[in-house]
Amino acid sequence: MSKTTILTGITTTGTPHLGNYVGAIRPAIEASRDRQVRSFYFLADYHSLIKCHDPERVNQSSLEVAAAWIALGLDTDNAIFYRQSDIPEIPELTWILTCMTAKGLMNRAHAYKAVVAENETAGTRDPDKGVTMGLFSYPILMAADILMFKATKVPVGRDQIQHLEMARDIALRFNHHFGELLVPPEAVVDDNTAVLTGLDGRKMSKSYNNTIPLFLPEKKLRKLIMKIKTDTSPPEAPKDTDTSSLFGIYRAFADDNATAAMRRRYAEGISWGEMKQILFETVNAVLEAPRRQYEKLIADPAYIESVLQKGARRAREHSVPFLSDIRKAAGIRPIGG
Amino acid sequence: MSKTTILTGITTTGTPHLGNYVGAIRPAIEASRDRQVRSFYFLADYHSLIKCHDPERVNQSSLEVAAAWIALGLDTDNAIFYRQSDIPEIPELTWILTCMTAKGLMNRAHAYKAVVAENETAGTRDPDKGVTMGLFSYPILMAADILMFKATKVPVGRDQIQHLEMARDIALRFNHHFGELLVPPEAVVDDNTAVLTGLDGRKMSKSYNNTIPLFLPEKKLRKLIMKIKTDTSPPEAPKDTDTSSLFGIYRAFADDNATAAMRRRYAEGISWGEMKQILFETVNAVLEAPRRQYEKLIADPAYIESVLQKGARRAREHSVPFLSDIRKAAGIRPIGG
Repeated sequence: MSKTTILTGITTTGTPHLGNYVGAIRPAIEASRDRQVRSFYFLADYHSLIKCHDPERVNQSSLEVAAAWIALGLDTDNAIFYRQSDIPEIPELTWILTCMTAKGLMNRAHAYKAVVAENETAGTRDPDKGVTMGLFSYPILMAADILMFKATKVPVGRDQIQHLEMARDIALRFNHHFGELLVPPEAVVDDNTAVLTGLDGRKMSKSYNNTIPLFLPEKKLRKLIMKIKTDTSPPEAPKDTDTSSLFGIYRAFADDNATAAMRRRYAEGISWGEMKQILFETVNAVLEAPRRQYEKLIADPAYIESVLQKGARRAREHSVPFLSDIRKAAGIRPIGG
Repeated sequence: MSKTTILTGITTTGTPHLGNYVGAIRPAIEASRDRQVRSFYFLADYHSLIKCHDPERVNQSSLEVAAAWIALGLDTDNAIFYRQSDIPEIPELTWILTCMTAKGLMNRAHAYKAVVAENETAGTRDPDKGVTMGLFSYPILMAADILMFKATKVPVGRDQIQHLEMARDIALRFNHHFGELLVPPEAVVDDNTAVLTGLDGRKMSKSYNNTIPLFLPEKKLRKLIMKIKTDTSPPEAPKDTDTSSLFGIYRAFADDNATAAMRRRYAEGISWGEMKQILFETVNAVLEAPRRQYEKLIADPAYIESVLQKGARRAREHSVPFLSDIRKAAGIRPIGG
């Protein structure tokens, strides 16, 4: 039981793009093959309800995200890959933890405070304008996701460290009242993951609308890469790799030798047109086989569903008995039992 | 489907007392026999977690409360009598509704505002001191309790009217986004229910520690009734029925003729000692048979559990398919389904 347990949630709004792939999906998929750790991967569809009230989009996004992760090689025999909403123990644990969470803790959550600050800047009379209880209490759902499977390590971005600390707080408060059942998790922050820039030179992000989706048809992928913003320096001018979006993406897809060689080409001078063509070929070479796999999967949702159902069964082998222990500890038991 | 549906939650902290019986339990039990309405009664053990972190007490109280209601004649063949925590669809619906609830709505809840006001009066630096997320968001759990079973009428005290309005608000917001699935409930306030005074002349309430528990052994019941505070007027002095705790309790247990006769005795002058003896006999006559039944039930928790399990099965005949519809409407569906 001292085996490291890793848990990764995958949001189900939006279509995965190159930035997601390099920054989150690829390292997570590599980790899914590690037989030395127990790992859980889940489609966080209950989280997506917080912001997305378009049922078709939630559903379509679940399909695309699941297909993408499987196509890219998520090891669903080693890792447990499930959909959050297939685990009814999670909302139940969420309520139990809700009773163990100080409101003051949620008041201090960055995501909530950011909206309040925006409202205040805009001079809105109600600082809570546009805040739903879903947004306000989502760190509790996240704590339930983590604590349900006794995750010891949770890979997160810097912005999520606070939520992990909250999950620890909530676990410790529960344990204080009801005994040492919950395992306080640790955040694992990898500052070395690549951050790609998007079409316009800003960080590639859905909210900037500057992304290159992961599984575009080959022609469209080429077209978008050709659109990436560059400066006006002439072909023969030496070029700076550090400020080049193209080089940043190239490096994330090429091996070390190729990257070193490209660095020399930049120093010698390379035309942006040639560089874009090479970049397209490099990215496409990595994505070609998974893309075919992805297209097959998208056309066979029943198969994806069966993979998720298998994952749910395996996940519930953990969550059903553990929630039963948690309930008993809190006094939710059969009468006379 | 246009049948009236009534829903009544029963808190599971504390031991039922005469005030609960007269004000809430007796009218609710009478209603449980009405074949013209569909009715749901539940032990609200997930609510009890908000304030009570003593698992033994939650458990013991569930036993006592369930035994009391069954002993007093709750019609568990007509009404559906279940334990909230046996219906996993309820916490799940709670999360879905959490995403549909404006934080501003919870900010305005009386119970929350009362604690903030206390903190402010006490000069506490943090107005949210002692507030858990359970206390803050409990109107959402209550909305889920009600909306899960399409309750059209919910009998409540005046202090709960606001929560019913919140349940309506939340239902309407859900319906606005996802279609007309939820049934906005109506509060039913009966201002005629008797409010008993306790041993010290204040309202009989657990929080004043002045209650007369419902199922005391006969001798203890007599002893407590003898302790009820009275004034020092001499036996022969005419007495006021309106200000007499004893008369208030008497009237709640005697029929109209006996009450009218007792009113005359008060006008003529009756000694407090005699009145207490009559009161004891009158209350005891009503409680004698249920007390025997209660003691039998308390000694047979497995039977009570079986009654609750039957209720849970019947309740889930409603909640399982309805939650499935609600999930689908919100986009929580099988992939490709």
